[in-house]
Amino acid sequence: MRLKNEIEKISKEAKEASKVLAKSSTEIKNKALLSMSKELKQKSSTIIRENKKDLAHARKLKLSKAMIDRLTLDKERIKEMADSVKAVASLEDPCGAIDKMWKRPNGLVIGKMRVAIGVIGIIYESRPNVTADCASLCIKSGNAVILKGGSESINSNIAIYKILRNCLKNQGLPKEAIGMVASTDRKSVSCLLKMDEYLDLIIPRGGEGLIRMVAKESRIPVIKHYKGVCHVYVDREADIKKALNICINAKVQRPGVCNAMETLLVDKKIAKEFMPLVIGKLKAQGVEIRGCKATRALVKGIKLAKESDWYEEFLDLILAVRVVDGIDEAIAHIAEYGSNHSDTIVTEDFQRALKFLKEVDSSCVYSNASTRFTDGFQFGFGAEIGISTDKIHARGPMALEELTSYKYIVFGDGQIRK
Amino acid sequence: MRLKNEIEKISKEAKEASKVLAKSSTEIKNKALLSMSKELKQKSSTIIRENKKDLAHARKLKLSKAMIDRLTLDKERIKEMADSVKAVASLEDPCGAIDKMWKRPNGLVIGKMRVAIGVIGIIYESRPNVTADCASLCIKSGNAVILKGGSESINSNIAIYKILRNCLKNQGLPKEAIGMVASTDRKSVSCLLKMDEYLDLIIPRGGEGLIRMVAKESRIPVIKHYKGVCHVYVDREADIKKALNICINAKVQRPGVCNAMETLLVDKKIAKEFMPLVIGKLKAQGVEIRGCKATRALVKGIKLAKESDWYEEFLDLILAVRVVDGIDEAIAHIAEYGSNHSDTIVTEDFQRALKFLKEVDSSCVYSNASTRFTDGFQFGFGAEIGISTDKIHARGPMALEELTSYKYIVFGDGQIRK
Repeated sequence: MRLKNEIEKISKEAKEASKVLAKSSTEIKNKALLSMSKELKQKSSTIIRENKKDLAHARKLKLSKAMIDRLTLDKERIKEMADSVKAVASLEDPCGAIDKMWKRPNGLVIGKMRVAIGVIGIIYESRPNVTADCASLCIKSGNAVILKGGSESINSNIAIYKILRNCLKNQGLPKEAIGMVASTDRKSVSCLLKMDEYLDLIIPRGGEGLIRMVAKESRIPVIKHYKGVCHVYVDREADIKKALNICINAKVQRPGVCNAMETLLVDKKIAKEFMPLVIGKLKAQGVEIRGCKATRALVKGIKLAKESDWYEEFLDLILAVRVVDGIDEAIAHIAEYGSNHSDTIVTEDFQRALKFLKEVDSSCVYSNASTRFTDGFQFGFGAEIGISTDKIHARGPMALEELTSYKYIVFGDGQIRK
Repeated sequence: MRLKNEIEKISKEAKEASKVLAKSSTEIKNKALLSMSKELKQKSSTIIRENKKDLAHARKLKLSKAMIDRLTLDKERIKEMADSVKAVASLEDPCGAIDKMWKRPNGLVIGKMRVAIGVIGIIYESRPNVTADCASLCIKSGNAVILKGGSESINSNIAIYKILRNCLKNQGLPKEAIGMVASTDRKSVSCLLKMDEYLDLIIPRGGEGLIRMVAKESRIPVIKHYKGVCHVYVDREADIKKALNICINAKVQRPGVCNAMETLLVDKKIAKEFMPLVIGKLKAQGVEIRGCKATRALVKGIKLAKESDWYEEFLDLILAVRVVDGIDEAIAHIAEYGSNHSDTIVTEDFQRALKFLKEVDSSCVYSNASTRFTDGFQFGFGAEIGISTDKIHARGPMALEELTSYKYIVFGDGQIRK
């Protein structure tokens, strides 16, 4: 009951604060963001001191080296965090933008105006820089935010949060526009997800388990992606050099992220030539191959892929490889096993490229480019709050515009309905 | 269990069918819609025969005269229904439209393409024409639809549904793209709302009770409005004649709909002059006035408004009236008691009009026009599937574009991520 009251208080205060943020000028929001950037750098020793508590705790819990690395903050990383916040200040403010405007025969002029959504809840794991990244994007887009980070980074998160709130206050903005659920009680997430009276949107960032839990328990709309099972389909008309470059880049450049390739599909017409080349290069980069029967017939010493491998997001130097009968079987495979995230065709045949772009039902569909470009910065949005594979509200990389809604504003001169 | 299996079968079939619809051409979708329009007219005697069963049952249940009127179909009403379907065929197909396209410094060309959402569930009450209206809009926008109408109109709905499905089949489209939950078991709605594996969106249409139930039980995203507590604020700088016309129109022209005025707010600087005029005219039209103390001091013989009246959607010839201290108190009143639907300011002062348009957080905010214009047809969309007061996905009147999502299509020439 105490937990519920505490979270309700934070949520209610955020809702009130969101009304102020929604009508705040771009100038004042930017001033607050620039002072946040400055303060984060100036107070980096405080952040590092708190971060050390989290690291000591993490070592006691024997967390993995990768986990501890993600958790660690130093002067350089805090500078990067501060620079990100500064970059958000320089982005265009989506609020108040008129997407379109038209005139009706009766003289009414109707405009579609971008407005803030209200209160956004961010539920995330380990990396403490998410605290500053997400808070700055929500503030810039005129929203209040409630942050619920992982318990591993609780001391670092609180330190950052206190600095950010203080900067809001110093600019005359309500500090409650950045809220944090600091309780490490496991029930606190479930409790926050029931605050549909105050929160307008939840964006979970983390592993599939966390996201499934959030989607299942939330009474608030959730925008999310569960996983990224991304495909590269190498068509019979592919340019072999481009295909090799794209395959290596999509698999090897950063295998632990959601837009990395997990399954390679090769047109049987080109498989005999292409398969030994690509597998040779991938193996040289340390990639373990799990192939279909046809793949194994073409290249020796390959593990047989299990049915479950086609669904798998390996997030590692492992790749499932399959020979397909052509573009239709490739599209059918992606529809069956994919996660609607990012998929690419490599081909010089224009009609087949268009067919793939049209028929593959993923948030980002590519021709002749690496799936690794699915990212708010790479798309030119200047930021990223997450990636969605949903079809409601926002899809693909999400930045400031996706943190807004719209309203219709209507200019009349006494019109009444006939 | 049998109910669950049946609804799961309908949902699964609709999901499969949605994949075909999503890639169907505008031409074939329009052909199907035009044949539906024709068949509805040709088979009107069948529809009327089935409708008579519903009417007989309604009389047995002693449903109200208004309910029975809404339920009744005759040749004229079926013609109107058929004409609506024909009109949908003539609307522009949103699918495949590129909202924008841009080039990145590395040469990637990114386009934002409109695509169908998938399977839309429509849950509605009494009026059987909703069956044809919603089905035609979903088909035109490349979606499959599952219809769940009220039990009062079940025979009429089934008759219409059979005609529509047959037309899909005759054009080579999967008839399962129009599904119907025909069971009148009360559990069937709850069951449908759990089919989040197959359905992508739920749009409930009906009274507040139905919509609250749907929002509470659904595991599928719901787009909705609970009610329309719409305000007219008459500012001190109002043109009295425009203000009178707008007030009468917003309250009296069709009081039973969600965009009718429920509360009138009058600036105290103009109240002495305006209040007797507007109340006189409203009373002459049979409107019952419930006023605040200040209103009652200005006009004799008025009932005192209770606190609950400010929250009320009367849907009838009843109006709550309040004197406010000026625009800020008007905006605060709307924020406190409103339903974020449609609100209007009447003023000749440009700055105050802009302030109201900016600060009132409703889906449609007007200056100098009746709230009755919140409607897909009046906005020029050529259709309406519902009105949303949500901030996720769609807000205000919704038509074909709001029944779509988007995906990013990316044209590359071998680009890899650095």
